[in-house]
Amino acid sequence: MSELRKDLVSGRWVIIATERSKRPDDFRPAGGAAPPPEAPGFCPFCEGNEAKTPPEVFALRKAGTGPDTPGWTVRVVPNKFPALTPGPPPPRATEGAFQSMEGRGVHEVVIENPDHALELGDLAVAHIRDVFRVFQLRIRAIERDLHYQYVQIFKNKGREAGASLSHPHSQLVATPIVPKRIKEEIYGADRMFRTFKECVFCRVLREEEAAGKRLVARNAHFTAIAPYASRSPFEMAVFPRRHSAFFTDAGEDELLALAGILKAVLTRLKETVGDPPFNMVLHQAPNPALSLKSWPDIHLKSHWHVEIIPVLTKMAGFEWGTGFYINPVPPETAAQFLKQP
Amino acid sequence: MSELRKDLVSGRWVIIATERSKRPDDFRPAGGAAPPPEAPGFCPFCEGNEAKTPPEVFALRKAGTGPDTPGWTVRVVPNKFPALTPGPPPPRATEGAFQSMEGRGVHEVVIENPDHALELGDLAVAHIRDVFRVFQLRIRAIERDLHYQYVQIFKNKGREAGASLSHPHSQLVATPIVPKRIKEEIYGADRMFRTFKECVFCRVLREEEAAGKRLVARNAHFTAIAPYASRSPFEMAVFPRRHSAFFTDAGEDELLALAGILKAVLTRLKETVGDPPFNMVLHQAPNPALSLKSWPDIHLKSHWHVEIIPVLTKMAGFEWGTGFYINPVPPETAAQFLKQP
Repeated sequence: MSELRKDLVSGRWVIIATERSKRPDDFRPAGGAAPPPEAPGFCPFCEGNEAKTPPEVFALRKAGTGPDTPGWTVRVVPNKFPALTPGPPPPRATEGAFQSMEGRGVHEVVIENPDHALELGDLAVAHIRDVFRVFQLRIRAIERDLHYQYVQIFKNKGREAGASLSHPHSQLVATPIVPKRIKEEIYGADRMFRTFKECVFCRVLREEEAAGKRLVARNAHFTAIAPYASRSPFEMAVFPRRHSAFFTDAGEDELLALAGILKAVLTRLKETVGDPPFNMVLHQAPNPALSLKSWPDIHLKSHWHVEIIPVLTKMAGFEWGTGFYINPVPPETAAQFLKQP
Repeated sequence: MSELRKDLVSGRWVIIATERSKRPDDFRPAGGAAPPPEAPGFCPFCEGNEAKTPPEVFALRKAGTGPDTPGWTVRVVPNKFPALTPGPPPPRATEGAFQSMEGRGVHEVVIENPDHALELGDLAVAHIRDVFRVFQLRIRAIERDLHYQYVQIFKNKGREAGASLSHPHSQLVATPIVPKRIKEEIYGADRMFRTFKECVFCRVLREEEAAGKRLVARNAHFTAIAPYASRSPFEMAVFPRRHSAFFTDAGEDELLALAGILKAVLTRLKETVGDPPFNMVLHQAPNPALSLKSWPDIHLKSHWHVEIIPVLTKMAGFEWGTGFYINPVPPETAAQFLKQP
C-alpha cells in the first residue's frame, strides 16, 4: 500500500509508492539506472499476450470474443504496479505535525490499440474517438464512487516522458483528494471570471481566434493553440469551443472532432520536431457530484481541455526553485511550424 | 531581449528566451537533440580560458592577479546566453487579455573552482564556504537595486539535471517579480505559523531531530533531513537551526558549518547512489528591502534552506496534470542509506 503525504508549506501531495519501491542500487548507472529493456518480441500490451496483464476492467471488442482474449480494439487493465490501490478512503493520519493517508485510489492503463507500432496519432480518427470514448466511460464509472474526487487521464510517450513500456497506452489515476494543480486552476479561473465576467478560457479562445498567430488548428468543434505562456517548446492546448466544464459531457460529434484535431496536431508535431517524447493530460473539473457542492458555479468557470507538452528541455534548478519555466521557442514560432502547411 | 509572460489561470510566469531561440531542427534527434558536445580539452570555465567568458563581475583571486586572468578560486561571470538581461524594469505590457514584460533581470554564472574535475562536494570545506560567501556577496550587491525582487541561486549538475557545461558551476538569476513558488512558500509558512504559533520550519526541525528516522546529518549549526513529503528519491533539505529568513544574514561560522554539512551529504549521495545528476536550490525570503514592506513579519515566518533534488525519476503526465509527485523511495529509507555509516 502506498502512502499519500502532504508537504506542510506548499500543500502539495506526494505519493510514496512502496509498490514500486526501489533501493539505491536500482539507480546506479551500472545497476540499472534505465528501466530494464523490454525483451524483444514480448510485450504484455500486444494482442495475444492478454494473460500477462491483470484481468481487464473493460474493453471494446468484437462480438463473441471473451475477456482477456484477442479481438479487442481498446483495452483497460489495472496498472500492475499501481501508485494507488482501490479501497475505502482512510481518515487522514498525523505523525506529529505531518499529515498522511493510505494511498487509496484507482490506477488503470488504457491500451490504445493492439498493434505495438501504431501510435495514437497514427490511428484512424474513428479509433482515436473510441479511445476517448473509453476514457469517458471509465471516468463516469469511477466517479460513481464519491470517494474519488478527481480522475486524471494522461499519456506518457517515450522514455524521456516517463513511459516504461513503449506499446502505445494512456493511464488513468483517480485520487481521493482534488490535486493542487486542479485547485489552482479552479481558483485561477474563478479570479479571472470576476475580472472578465465570463469564462477565462472562452475569452482566451476568442482572442486567439482573432489574433491568429498562436493558432495551430481548428475544426467544427475544437481549436488548438500554442499557449501564450507555453512552458515548453511546441506545447499545445486543445479546447472545445462549446463551453463545458466536464469532458464527460462531450457528445459523440465532439468526440469525433476531438479525435480529428488530435490526429492532425500529433501528426504535425511528428513532422515538425521528429516524433519527440511528450506528455498529454486531460484537464476537467473534479467529480461533478462533489465539485458542484464545493464550487456551485464551477460549470460556468471551468472549461475542459487537453494539453500536449513535448519533452524537449530539462526541468532544472531555476524551475525547481522558482516555478518559472524557460522556453527557448516563442509560441508564435511554434504555431507557425505546427500549422497545417 | 527575452520576454516574461504570465499564464492567466495559474499565475505562473514563463521566460520566452529569445537569446537562446531555437528552431524545430535543433530538437530533431539527428539535428542535435542533445546539446553539442564540448570540444575535448576546451572549456570556457577552466583556468587559462578566462577570455572565453564575458568579463568577470567578481572573483576571489590571489593578490596581484588582474581580472580575467588566472589566479582565481571562485569566479563570477555574466551568463553568455542570459535568460534575463539587466536594465530598467519596464511596466507590464498587455496584449488583449495577456500580460507580459521585457525580460529584465540578472543572470550570472558562479564558477566554483578552476579545476574542471573537482565537483562542489570534492572541494575543501573552506573552499565550499568561499563559494557560499560569494553567493552572499552577489545577492547583497544585486539586492541594492530594488528592481530585483528575488535572487535565485541554483546548481544543475549533469546533463539530465539541465547542465549544458560540465565544469562545476552554479547560477544566479534575479527576477523583477517574486516567483510563484516563493510566494507559495511565504503564504504556506504564514498559514502554518498561525496553526503552530511558531515558524513551521523550526517546528519541523524539532520534530525531525526527535524522531530521527529522516535525519541525514547534523553539525554545530545545520541539520540535513530527507523531507517527509520528498518529491524525488534521496531528496535532501539542509536547514540552519538558528531561525533566519535571509541567507544573506548567515555569519562566518554558519557559512563554514553549511560548507561542512554540504560536503558530507553530497559525498554520501555520491557513495550511495553513484554520482547522480542533481539540482540544488537555495530558498530564502525575497529582497529584504521589499519583502519586509509587503510582509512585515516575514522574518519571523520564513526560514532559509538549501534543497538538493537528485534527478532519478522523470517528470511525467500525472505530475504535469496534477502537481502530485510519485516517489518510489520513502524518505526514511533514503535517510537510512544517506546517513554517515
